[in-house]
Amino acid sequence: MARMIHSMIRVRDETASVAFYAKALGLRVANRYPFDGFTLIYLRNDEQTFELELTVNADRTEPYQLGDGYGHLAVSVEDVEAEHARMVSEGLSPQPLKTMPLEGVEFARFFFVADGDGYKIEVLQRGGRFE
Amino acid sequence: MARMIHSMIRVRDETASVAFYAKALGLRVANRYPFDGFTLIYLRNDEQTFELELTVNADRTEPYQLGDGYGHLAVSVEDVEAEHARMVSEGLSPQPLKTMPLEGVEFARFFFVADGDGYKIEVLQRGGRFE
Repeated sequence: MARMIHSMIRVRDETASVAFYAKALGLRVANRYPFDGFTLIYLRNDEQTFELELTVNADRTEPYQLGDGYGHLAVSVEDVEAEHARMVSEGLSPQPLKTMPLEGVEFARFFFVADGDGYKIEVLQRGGRFE
Repeated sequence: MARMIHSMIRVRDETASVAFYAKALGLRVANRYPFDGFTLIYLRNDEQTFELELTVNADRTEPYQLGDGYGHLAVSVEDVEAEHARMVSEGLSPQPLKTMPLEGVEFARFFFVADGDGYKIEVLQRGGRFE
């Protein structure tokens, strides 16, 4: 059966992206592979096996067009308020914390933060269906 | 520490998308939440905990703009040749199987297939760094 193993995004500034994902999500570089004209970087941490793959195309200078189809990568954290405060203090400019109800009950408590290329990350309070 | 738990894409035809991901990747609907104006559908299988989240906006009729930033969701499979043949026979129109070398050694054996909205899925031979 198919196992979801990574999601790939194209980014322009490898150093900035690696630093952002380390600071924001605690992801480290598992492997880095330079190919002819592009580099692949796999980011992970010890929370599970899924990875974020960054593609850096050497000749890309203009911003990537993110469109309106792809939404975000979501993560869960133990304490979303503390994580929001940490990101504010680290200068990552997260959007405000929000609560999303479903039939009068809290469904999700979360905020969004974006990387340097504008890809959105949803940071969710762990618990309920968001383990 | 942040745990990657899902990736979200916006799709137009819930029935078609759910059928595609069931047939292509063996994903089932874990939960489905109708909100006012949109529906969230979480897809998973038993290979790991990561989910694919579909957002269906009720008023969306035109195709989503996928841009050139987001790349793909990758999955690993036990036998990529067999999986390719299966997808051909099921009418999923996968692209040709390819091998990507790195310094003379096979780095990845894979093919791409796209869902009804055009989101690409990379199907990789399991093994090496693609577990």
